[in-house]
Amino acid sequence: MRIDKNQVAELNAKAADGHTNDFNYIADKLTAKGHDVDSLLEKIGSLKIATPSWALGTGATRFGRFPGGGEPATIEQKIEDISVLADLSNQTDSVSLHIPWDIPSDPAALREFADNCGIRFDAMNSNTFQDQSGATESYKFGSLCHSDANVRKYAVDHNIECIEIGKELGSNVLTVWLADGSTFPGQANFMKQFDNTLDSLKAIYAALPEDWMMFTEHKPFEPNFYSSVVNDWGSSLSLAQKTGERCLCLVDLGHHLPNTNIEQVVSRVLAEGRLGGFHFNDSKYADDDLTVGCMKPYQLYLIFLELVDFMEGDHIKNPDLAFMIDASHNFKDPLEDLLQSLEAIALSYAQALVMDRDALTLAQDANDVALTQEIVQCAYRADLRALVAESRRRAGKALSPIQAYREIKVREQLIGERGMDSQSSGL
Amino acid sequence: MRIDKNQVAELNAKAADGHTNDFNYIADKLTAKGHDVDSLLEKIGSLKIATPSWALGTGATRFGRFPGGGEPATIEQKIEDISVLADLSNQTDSVSLHIPWDIPSDPAALREFADNCGIRFDAMNSNTFQDQSGATESYKFGSLCHSDANVRKYAVDHNIECIEIGKELGSNVLTVWLADGSTFPGQANFMKQFDNTLDSLKAIYAALPEDWMMFTEHKPFEPNFYSSVVNDWGSSLSLAQKTGERCLCLVDLGHHLPNTNIEQVVSRVLAEGRLGGFHFNDSKYADDDLTVGCMKPYQLYLIFLELVDFMEGDHIKNPDLAFMIDASHNFKDPLEDLLQSLEAIALSYAQALVMDRDALTLAQDANDVALTQEIVQCAYRADLRALVAESRRRAGKALSPIQAYREIKVREQLIGERGMDSQSSGL
Amino acid sequence: MRIDKNQVAELNAKAADGHTNDFNYIADKLTAKGHDVDSLLEKIGSLKIATPSWALGTGATRFGRFPGGGEPATIEQKIEDISVLADLSNQTDSVSLHIPWDIPSDPAALREFADNCGIRFDAMNSNTFQDQSGATESYKFGSLCHSDANVRKYAVDHNIECIEIGKELGSNVLTVWLADGSTFPGQANFMKQFDNTLDSLKAIYAALPEDWMMFTEHKPFEPNFYSSVVNDWGSSLSLAQKTGERCLCLVDLGHHLPNTNIEQVVSRVLAEGRLGGFHFNDSKYADDDLTVGCMKPYQLYLIFLELVDFMEGDHIKNPDLAFMIDASHNFKDPLEDLLQSLEAIALSYAQALVMDRDALTLAQDANDVALTQEIVQCAYRADLRALVAESRRRAGKALSPIQAYREIKVREQLIGERGMDSQSSGL
Amino acid sequence: MRIDKNQVAELNAKAADGHTNDFNYIADKLTAKGHDVDSLLEKIGSLKIATPSWALGTGATRFGRFPGGGEPATIEQKIEDISVLADLSNQTDSVSLHIPWDIPSDPAALREFADNCGIRFDAMNSNTFQDQSGATESYKFGSLCHSDANVRKYAVDHNIECIEIGKELGSNVLTVWLADGSTFPGQANFMKQFDNTLDSLKAIYAALPEDWMMFTEHKPFEPNFYSSVVNDWGSSLSLAQKTGERCLCLVDLGHHLPNTNIEQVVSRVLAEGRLGGFHFNDSKYADDDLTVGCMKPYQLYLIFLELVDFMEGDHIKNPDLAFMIDASHNFKDPLEDLLQSLEAIALSYAQALVMDRDALTLAQDANDVALTQEIVQCAYRADLRALVAESRRRAGKALSPIQAYREIKVREQLIGERGMDSQSSGL
Repeated sequence: MRIDKNQVAELNAKAADGHTNDFNYIADKLTAKGHDVDSLLEKIGSLKIATPSWALGTGATRFGRFPGGGEPATIEQKIEDISVLADLSNQTDSVSLHIPWDIPSDPAALREFADNCGIRFDAMNSNTFQDQSGATESYKFGSLCHSDANVRKYAVDHNIECIEIGKELGSNVLTVWLADGSTFPGQANFMKQFDNTLDSLKAIYAALPEDWMMFTEHKPFEPNFYSSVVNDWGSSLSLAQKTGERCLCLVDLGHHLPNTNIEQVVSRVLAEGRLGGFHFNDSKYADDDLTVGCMKPYQLYLIFLELVDFMEGDHIKNPDLAFMIDASHNFKDPLEDLLQSLEAIALSYAQALVMDRDALTLAQDANDVALTQEIVQCAYRADLRALVAESRRRAGKALSPIQAYREIKVREQLIGERGMDSQSSGL
Repeated sequence: MRIDKNQVAELNAKAADGHTNDFNYIADKLTAKGHDVDSLLEKIGSLKIATPSWALGTGATRFGRFPGGGEPATIEQKIEDISVLADLSNQTDSVSLHIPWDIPSDPAALREFADNCGIRFDAMNSNTFQDQSGATESYKFGSLCHSDANVRKYAVDHNIECIEIGKELGSNVLTVWLADGSTFPGQANFMKQFDNTLDSLKAIYAALPEDWMMFTEHKPFEPNFYSSVVNDWGSSLSLAQKTGERCLCLVDLGHHLPNTNIEQVVSRVLAEGRLGGFHFNDSKYADDDLTVGCMKPYQLYLIFLELVDFMEGDHIKNPDLAFMIDASHNFKDPLEDLLQSLEAIALSYAQALVMDRDALTLAQDANDVALTQEIVQCAYRADLRALVAESRRRAGKALSPIQAYREIKVREQLIGERGMDSQSSGL
Repeated sequence: MRIDKNQVAELNAKAADGHTNDFNYIADKLTAKGHDVDSLLEKIGSLKIATPSWALGTGATRFGRFPGGGEPATIEQKIEDISVLADLSNQTDSVSLHIPWDIPSDPAALREFADNCGIRFDAMNSNTFQDQSGATESYKFGSLCHSDANVRKYAVDHNIECIEIGKELGSNVLTVWLADGSTFPGQANFMKQFDNTLDSLKAIYAALPEDWMMFTEHKPFEPNFYSSVVNDWGSSLSLAQKTGERCLCLVDLGHHLPNTNIEQVVSRVLAEGRLGGFHFNDSKYADDDLTVGCMKPYQLYLIFLELVDFMEGDHIKNPDLAFMIDASHNFKDPLEDLLQSLEAIALSYAQALVMDRDALTLAQDANDVALTQEIVQCAYRADLRALVAESRRRAGKALSPIQAYREIKVREQLIGERGMDSQSSGL
Repeated sequence: MRIDKNQVAELNAKAADGHTNDFNYIADKLTAKGHDVDSLLEKIGSLKIATPSWALGTGATRFGRFPGGGEPATIEQKIEDISVLADLSNQTDSVSLHIPWDIPSDPAALREFADNCGIRFDAMNSNTFQDQSGATESYKFGSLCHSDANVRKYAVDHNIECIEIGKELGSNVLTVWLADGSTFPGQANFMKQFDNTLDSLKAIYAALPEDWMMFTEHKPFEPNFYSSVVNDWGSSLSLAQKTGERCLCLVDLGHHLPNTNIEQVVSRVLAEGRLGGFHFNDSKYADDDLTVGCMKPYQLYLIFLELVDFMEGDHIKNPDLAFMIDASHNFKDPLEDLLQSLEAIALSYAQALVMDRDALTLAQDANDVALTQEIVQCAYRADLRALVAESRRRAGKALSPIQAYREIKVREQLIGERGMDSQSSGL
C-alpha cells in the first residue's frame, strides 16, 4: 500500500491551529536567542536515517517470537513499508538490505521499483552469523576469523557478493558486522583470530569499488559469550586503520559494556577521522535493540552534541556520516516503533543544534562547571517537538506521524493486503 | 549571611516579562488538557527536600579534595547556607545533621537559631563508619554487625545518642546507613553479620520515641568491596520488617548495581508499605554522588512517576515520604550544585504530575505499548521550567536561583565573612 | 544407546595406576588434616544434579543455531542420553521436563522406560514464554501477570497441567520461571503486574499436592528488556512468602545484574528458609548459559561454601535443596558440556567440604582477615580431582568421563542411530 | 628492621618433610608430562614485581581510614619494609616511588641505602591528582589536559622533575596515571582535553632519557565520574602511538568497566607492541584495589596465559614487561597483604607456564571447544603451591611467607620500632 498524501494533508489541516501556536512560540524564542529558524528546519529535514529491511517485521529473542499481521514478505513489500514511513516522517528515504535475506532476483527491476517509491539503497549488510541452507562451509566457529582458510574465503566471497548486488542497486557502503569470537576461555587464540580477520577484511577491501566505503562494527558479546573479535572501538579502529582509508567504524548504541561513555567513544573515533556512522537503538541491559530514545534520551542528546560539533564545524576531518536504525520490534507494531525512533532522532538532533556552543566553549575554558551544565541542559529541556513537526509539515509529511498512521489505518490495510501470517525474514 | 528578599524581588521583576510569556504559554496548554494549574503550583511548592549538613562544603574522593572558599565551619553557618538556598529555591527548608560532625553544644539555642532562619531539623544521621578521636571501640571491622558485642553496643549507644540529640532539636527520624560488610571472600559469615545487625537495630528501635521513624539504607559496596550487610532492597526490607513497623527503607539513587531498575525497586518497597524516603543524587558508574538530574534525568522522572502514583492516590498504604539530597560537590560551588539538584527534583515532580495517568492506565490495560510510550514521554518532553519558576515566584523565591545566586554574589560574600580556608566537616 | 559398563571398567583399569597414585596422595593429605575420606567420597557421590531435557540438544541465540548430529528427538531418547551421563558421571540420575515440549503420550509407559534407564523425574517446568500452535490466548504481553484475566487463567491452567503430568511421572516439584515483565518504561504498572502474578501463583499453589513444592525463579531481564516481574531475589522471596510455605526460591547463576554477590543472595534466601535450589550454569555478561565452572570457578566454590554450611550443619532451617543444570550448549557437544558441568559442580562441592570451617569461624570472629583468606583459598587451591574421580570409580562410573565418552564413541553411535538431522525441542 | 635469614632457614627446616613430599609429588607429575622442573623453578624465581611505596601503609576510602601500627614514615623505612618482603618472598626486589610523597633529600644516599637492602628503584610515579601545599597552580580541573596552558606546563614540569629524581636513583620508567577528565556532561570538550593531554605527554617525552620508557595508564572513572581522558585501552594506545615509540601502555586490573575481558585487552596491546606492564590487584565492583587473586583468580590465570604466550615465544614483538602491585590495604596488615599478592601472582604464572600450549593450539585449530577447556582448566586445577614454595626455598626465602612473617613477629617488631601512630604517606 501507499499513503494518500491528501489524507496526510487533511489530518495536518485539522491540527493546524494548535501546531501553529506551539511552533510560533518556540520559533519566537529561538529567534530571540539568535537562531535562524528556517535554517534549523532545513537541517532537521535533511537528516536522513536508513531503515533496515529486517526491522519491518516482528523481532524475536531466543525465547520466542510473537508476530503481528501484515508483515512484508518480499523486498518489494519492505520497500513499500519504508515508503509509508517516508510519507509520514521526514527522516527516512532509504533501505538497508541484508544478504542473503534480501537477494533480489532482478536487481534492475528492484531498483526501478524503489525509485518509484522514492526509496534509495543504503548500506549492504553481509551475514556470516548463520549457516544458510545448502552452505558448503559452516560459520559455527567463525567466519572471517576462522582457523580454516576455506571458511574465511567462503565468508570473504559472500561479502564480495554483497558488494556486487549493491553495485547494481546503487548502494555504496558495505557493513560488516561479525559474530566471530569465542564463548569459552581458551577456545580461541585472540591474536590469530584478529590477524585472520584483518586478512579477510583486506581481501574484501580489495574488491571494494573506489567510491564505496566499508564499515566495521564492534560488539562486546552475543552471540559469543567470552570474547568477540571486534569487541570494542579500539579493536574496530585498529582493523579499520590497517585495512584501508575507506574502512570506517560503525557505532551501534547497544554494543557497549555497562556504563560506557558512548559519546566519548564517538568523539575518539571522530578525532581519528574514522567514524562511518551509526546504528541507532536504545538499551538498558545489553544489545536490547529497543526504540531509539525510549530508555536513555539524554544520552542520545549527548551523542548528538558530538555529531553536531562535527557536522556544524570544519575542525574535524571525517567523512560524512551514515545513519541507520537497528532495532528489534518485539512488542510494538514495527512501523510505529520506527516512527517513534525517527522522531526521537530528529528531536535529539534539533536539541543539539540549538545548544549554545559558543557559550559552552567559554564556560568550558573557564572551568565554570555549573554553567556548562546549565547550558547543556537548557537546550535539552526546551520542547522542540513543534519545530520537528514543522519541518515535516513543510515537506508534506504528517504533523503527528503515529496518530496519522493510526487514523489512516495503515496496519489494517497491510493486514488486508498481506494477511495475518505473512512472514518477514530477519532475526 | 542572609539573602535580602528585595534583591530577589528586583531580579524577578527584571525577568518578569519573559517569564510571564513562558508561564502563560505552558499554563494555557496545561489548562486545555484539564489540569488545574494553581493546584499544580501548590503541589510543586509543597515538595520539600532536606539539605544534608555535610553537602555544604566541597566533597572529596579518596584521591583528594579541592576546597573552595567560604565553607561553613559551624552548624550555625551550615544553617545559614541552607537559609540561602531556601530564599532562592522553593524546595528546601530543613537540615539533616550528621553526628558526631554536628553535635550541638547547646541544642535549644541551635533550635532557636534555626527557627529564626526558617530551617527545621530533618533526619538525624549516625556515623559508624569512622573512628572518632578518643573512641574506645573501633569500627574497622564493622559496627552493628561486629563479631564483638562490645563494639555492637558502642555503635547502638551512638545511635541512641543521635536520637537524644534529635529529640531536642525537633527531629523525628533516625537514618542508619551502615558501612558494615566485608572486603574479602570468607572474611565474614553473612548470616552472623545479618543477625548481629538485626539485633542491634532492634536495640536502637527500642529507644526510638513513638513518633519517630527509623530508616535503613542499602548500598551494594564501598567502603567494603566484597559484601555489604545491607546490600540491596531485599536485605533492607527484611531488616525493616523484622525490626518494627516504624522501621522503613531509604533509597539512595546511587546505591545500586549497574543497570538496576530503580523505579521498580521503589514500587516494590512502596507495595510493602516500607518506603521511608529518598537520598537524591545521580551517578553514572557507582555511588558517584553527583548533582540530581545531571546524568540520567529520564530515570529521575520515571522514579517520580512511581512516587506520584503513591502521593496522588490512596491505593498504596505507606507512610509519608522523607526526601533528602545526598551528593558530594567536588567540582562545583556546593550551593550552586544544591540549587541545580533542587531544580531537577522539582522539574521531575512537575512532569510526573502532568503525566496523563488515566490515559496511561487505559493504554496499559490494552497492552498498547507504543501508546504507553507516547503518553509517558509526552509529559517528559513538555518544558515545565516556567511552571516551576512560577511556583517559586509566588513564594517570593527567585525565578532563576543560580542566576540570582551569582548576581547577589553570595559566594563572594561568604568568602568575605569566612575566608578562603574555612573547613566544613564531612567526607 | 546405552553405555556398556564393561567398557567403562576397562578404561578405568587402564588409568588405574596413575589415579591410585594421585588419590593416595590427596587422601593422605586429607586424612592428616582430620578428614574422613570415605565419608567425603560418599557425600560427593550423593550429590545429584537433575539434567534438563532441553539441554541435550544444541542451543541457540537469537542470531542462529548450529546443530550437531544425533540429537534426541523424543523424550525416550532424551532419557537415554541422561542414562549415558549417569553411566559416566556420578552426579546425575534424573531428568527435568519442560511442558509442552515434553508432554508424554503415555506417562505410565514413560515412567517405566525411565525406571529401566535408572532415571527419575525431577522438577516439572512450565512454559508461558512462547505461544504454542493452536493456543487460544497469547503470552505476548505476559502470562501470570497479564492484564487480562483470561490469559492469566490460561497460564494458571497450563501450570496445573504440568503438575498433573508430573504426578503421573513421580515428580514432586513445579518450577515456574516467568518471562513476564515489560520492555519499555510505562508499558506496565509494576504493582498491578506483581499483584496479578501473586494471585496466579496462589491459584497454582491451590492445586499443588501436599508433598509437592513450587519454585519461583528470578531474572532481571531477557526476554523483557525494561523490567521483569520476578526480577531479583527480593521479589522472588516476597512472592514465595505470600504464596505459601511450600513455595520456595530458585537461584539461577546467570540471572543477576553485573557484579552481584550471588553467594550472599544464597545466604539471604537460606536464612529466610526459602531456598528451593539451583539452576547451575556460568556466565560472563548476562544469562549466557555456559558450562558450569567455565568462567568463574571461584564464585562457584564460594556459593558451595554457603550450601555446605547449610548441608553440614543444623543451624539453618531450610528444606532440602534441588539442583539442576540450566545451560545452553551452542558450541560443544551437549553431552560433553554436561559432563564438564557435572565435574565442575562435584569439584566445587568437594572443595567446600574440605574447607576448614572451624578454623574459619575462629579467624572470622577474631577479624583476622588475612587468615580467613588463607583458609578459604587453601581448600580451593587443593587439587581434588582424584577425590572426585575416586567417588566415581567406586560407583562404577568413569574415572575420566569426557575421555571415556570419546573413546566409547558415544556421539558417533548416537549419530548412527538418529542421523545428523534429528531435532531436539528446546530453545 | 631486617629479617634474620637464620630464622627463615629454621622455619623452613621445620616444614621440610611435608614440603618435600608435596614438591616431589608435583615435580614427578610435571616431569612425566615433559616439563623441566628446574627450568620452571628458575622462571618462577625470576618473576619480579615492584612494590609501590604507597602500599606499605594502611589505605583509605573516602569514608575513612583505620590505620594499623608500625607503618613506615620515611622512604628508608618503606625500603626496609620491602626488604622484609624480599627476604620472605621470591617475587619482589624493587620499590616504585610516588612523587612528591617520596622526594628524597639526598638521592645518592638513598640509593646506597636501598642497595644495602637489596632493593632497586622501579618506575617513578608522578602525582597530578592532588594539590600540594604551596602549589602555584591547581589540578582541580585537570593537569596535562587542562584548558589553561600554565597548568599544563606546571604538570609537565612536575613529571620532568620525577624523571630527574629517578635518574639519580637508577630508575628508567616514568608512569603517568592521570585523574584528568570531567564529572558532568558538557563540562569539558573531549577532543580538546585529548589534544592537550597529547601535547603535554609529548613535552614530557622530549625530556625522557633515551634508555627510559614512559607508561600511560587508562582508567574509566574515579576521581572523575563522567569521563576520563585516558579512559580505555583504545585511548591509551592512541596516546602512546602518537607520543613516541618508548611510550607504552600500562594495564591496571581494576581499571575496566564491568564484564571487560581484560585478557583480550592484554592481547590487543601486546599485538600492537605497546604493552608496558601491569598494575596488579583485584576487584569485584570498581577500582577496589584488593589483594591480587582474592576475587577472580581464574581471570588472573587467563591473563598470565597471554603474558606467557609473549614471554615464552618470539612471535610477539613487544618490550619486556614491568610488573607492579597497586593495591590499597584497608583491612589487612599491608605486608601480609602484599605477601598474599606476590604468592597469587607466582601461582598464576606457574599455572600458565605448565599449561600445554602445543595441545591447546591443536585443539583451537580443530575447534574442539570442549577439549580447549579441558586443557586450560587442567593447568589451573593443578596444585602448584609446592612448586612455588620450592622456588623460594632454593633462593633462601620462606616456604610459607605469611606464616614466617607471623612467627618472626615482624609487625610487632615494627610497632616496637616505630610506634602505633607512625604515618605513611599515600592515599
